[in-house]
Amino acid sequence: MQIPDKEKILLRSDNIKPYIYRTPVFTSDSLNRLTGCRLFFKCENFQKTGSFKARGAMNALLEYKNSIGDKTVITHSSGNFAQALAYGASRIGLKCTVVMPQNAVESKINSVRSYGAEIIFSGNLPHERENKCEDVVKDRNGFFIHPSNDIVLITGHSSCAVELISDAEDLDYVFVPVGGGGLASGIILGFKYLSPETKIIGIEPEGADDAFRSLKAGKIIPQTNPDTIADGLRTSLGEITFEILKTYLHEIITVSDQLIINSMKLIWERLKIISEPSGSVSLAGLLKNSDRYLNKKIGIILSGGNINLKNIFRNEN
Amino acid sequence: MQIPDKEKILLRSDNIKPYIYRTPVFTSDSLNRLTGCRLFFKCENFQKTGSFKARGAMNALLEYKNSIGDKTVITHSSGNFAQALAYGASRIGLKCTVVMPQNAVESKINSVRSYGAEIIFSGNLPHERENKCEDVVKDRNGFFIHPSNDIVLITGHSSCAVELISDAEDLDYVFVPVGGGGLASGIILGFKYLSPETKIIGIEPEGADDAFRSLKAGKIIPQTNPDTIADGLRTSLGEITFEILKTYLHEIITVSDQLIINSMKLIWERLKIISEPSGSVSLAGLLKNSDRYLNKKIGIILSGGNINLKNIFRNEN
Repeated sequence: MQIPDKEKILLRSDNIKPYIYRTPVFTSDSLNRLTGCRLFFKCENFQKTGSFKARGAMNALLEYKNSIGDKTVITHSSGNFAQALAYGASRIGLKCTVVMPQNAVESKINSVRSYGAEIIFSGNLPHERENKCEDVVKDRNGFFIHPSNDIVLITGHSSCAVELISDAEDLDYVFVPVGGGGLASGIILGFKYLSPETKIIGIEPEGADDAFRSLKAGKIIPQTNPDTIADGLRTSLGEITFEILKTYLHEIITVSDQLIINSMKLIWERLKIISEPSGSVSLAGLLKNSDRYLNKKIGIILSGGNINLKNIFRNEN
Repeated sequence: MQIPDKEKILLRSDNIKPYIYRTPVFTSDSLNRLTGCRLFFKCENFQKTGSFKARGAMNALLEYKNSIGDKTVITHSSGNFAQALAYGASRIGLKCTVVMPQNAVESKINSVRSYGAEIIFSGNLPHERENKCEDVVKDRNGFFIHPSNDIVLITGHSSCAVELISDAEDLDYVFVPVGGGGLASGIILGFKYLSPETKIIGIEPEGADDAFRSLKAGKIIPQTNPDTIADGLRTSLGEITFEILKTYLHEIITVSDQLIINSMKLIWERLKIISEPSGSVSLAGLLKNSDRYLNKKIGIILSGGNINLKNIFRNEN
């Protein structure tokens, strides 16, 4: 596998600028006091379409544009990547079709449609979604873009690191959620070139710890029957993301759902912003062992803010 | 009553700058599409201590500092003003005591204590709180600062208008929550001098509509038995705030709790930020009649973000 060099990462980061937000970095005196660290929260919940996925989707669409031609871009996703690809395609005039599971959240379905993308529904299991998508790509001679395991996507995600490094210099650690590993890989590559002293720590839910087990075993162990509130992190590493994490990740930590929920509440209460459960695992990873990081300068990636309030509010119909 | 002139408002706005945040103004394409307006959300949920109250409290402490001398500043409040005064006093080295009802929320009690203020508990009814506070002021020869009905406080709140006008020019309307009327009065005075064409619209919950009834009757009708989720808006207008609203407010609108909750959810989902129910009534006021404001440029004041998640999360102990 060919990983992108520093120049490519900076160039791609520039290319996608007109299409994405430069998200803010938040700090909190009270969370600093609570943890004994100096924390810098990178707020991808404010990103276009509500998650970091817009970065990679946009970069993939721009890089593949000539190969795509007038084909329809097609992916499978239950949520954040569906919205990101639909958004990106609408911005540069491409047709987009997304295969989504029948049980996808209504707000995400509406969001994908609002960008003019077509939705084809599949069964709810990951392999049903993937098989359906394969059929649709063949039937329509479409252009498939994978939701996480694609080095072009990952290069787009590196723009998140480029911005964070410019807003918070000399970080000792960065805590990043690990699902398919795309965001973590992007963060790793960005820091590798621009701030190599910074150690990147991946965080996974205990109920979907395939990356933890895969890195320990030295081979990919796919996630079966994930059981966690962090719905964006139920997927498995791919070959590319496994390779990058295996080579460069400093450490991987797993956290319980209870700690994820507590962390999410702290973010809501103290930072006054909405972070989804999957985005909150990064703070959970720090809270699990915060005494190990006393006085350190730490980046916390809040990867997204797409929540289903129906699951959260009391007395909701 | 002597209202502050333009120079005083700008001077006080400058004076408090080192102690407060210049809060951001958020926009949302999806909420613009939903309402047919161009909306500018002034995010006081990100203000120091989580609400606009820090502005007025800080200004009062700075203006009264010589009179206060080495006395303890004392107020009564169940929430946002208690935190704001405790914060302000800690910043300029003053002693602070707050009379809080026994049923005050734990997180607010902890926050007040974290700023080093003393808490004295009273009964839960407003008059119990006020009577207790009066006793404490006498016993200790303290310096009393009223939580809303004070022109110096109001002058501090005007700094919110000064910032909004600089970030969003030529607003047609500004929607602002009305509780004790302090914030609305501050917004009114700021716009009166700096953007006089802008019309200010006050919003009240139906279950605490004393300002609506008072303005209709031409005299103060105190709020008895308020019944609304917007806990920060259960108080009554005072003589000063009644006079300012009576003279300058363009219109007052009441909204149901259901519309307040729907508006709060929209803010959480679309803006990805935490607005408390009291802060969300301003959007509710627009949603009630949004067809009346098509294509208008509208400021929406989100007054605070201090929520009690225990009341909101499902399955919470």
